[in-house]
Amino acid sequence: MTAYDPENIFAKLLRGEIPAARVYEDEQTLAFMDIMPRADGHLLVIPKTPCRNVLDASPEQLAAVMQTVQKLSKAVIKAFSADGVTLQQFNEAAGGQEVFHLHFHILPRHEGDKMRPPGTMAERDVIEAHAAQIREAVATL
Amino acid sequence: MTAYDPENIFAKLLRGEIPAARVYEDEQTLAFMDIMPRADGHLLVIPKTPCRNVLDASPEQLAAVMQTVQKLSKAVIKAFSADGVTLQQFNEAAGGQEVFHLHFHILPRHEGDKMRPPGTMAERDVIEAHAAQIREAVATL
Repeated sequence: MTAYDPENIFAKLLRGEIPAARVYEDEQTLAFMDIMPRADGHLLVIPKTPCRNVLDASPEQLAAVMQTVQKLSKAVIKAFSADGVTLQQFNEAAGGQEVFHLHFHILPRHEGDKMRPPGTMAERDVIEAHAAQIREAVATL
Repeated sequence: MTAYDPENIFAKLLRGEIPAARVYEDEQTLAFMDIMPRADGHLLVIPKTPCRNVLDASPEQLAAVMQTVQKLSKAVIKAFSADGVTLQQFNEAAGGQEVFHLHFHILPRHEGDKMRPPGTMAERDVIEAHAAQIREAVATL
């Protein structure tokens, strides 16, 4: 497997070199909005330490990320009165991975909805409004 | 959230009441073939203890399941010379969940492939042949 590239965009985001609509962080993980949401409230959870994907993750990274995935799954259900949550996680390009820093997708779902096709950027104020809803929900879980 | 139903099919499978093409197990987790594979080698990882989905999982269940997910992701790459792995995990019916015992889908992927549509049962001997390849790969990781 290719080595970790410290210039990937999530590494830059962690260093504060590019902006993100952050919704939660703890010592080991960060959660922020996907800028091409396939559902309202679509967010990503990443470890703060370098890791390409699930294949090279340490047990500690996986455990910490999953704790945050659980917390944010509960938060989006509360924030959007969602009926369910779909998790996706892609490893290597053939697996669907586009940014090579481990990340889990959290997609709030409602009965009868369909995920939007990938690749469409959302308006910044829409993303920010959803981020605010999630921040409030996670603070009052 | 609805309580855990001990009559769900994965609970029955864990009790040996229904068959499965098992590929790996340890004290806390079990991996077995999906009978409606969306890619060759599509398998599932579950905790051996009751848990409806990510929303009610304990930290120990999540950590143990992710360790097995990582191990089997490496195993399918080896078994099928896969180029990547897609993970999916569904919570509640609106999130895509059909069996209400926590499970992760592991899908081996190859450059340029497409996942098959859901819902088509595979031939039993095909599933068994893929299971044998995965068992051999996981034993020699």
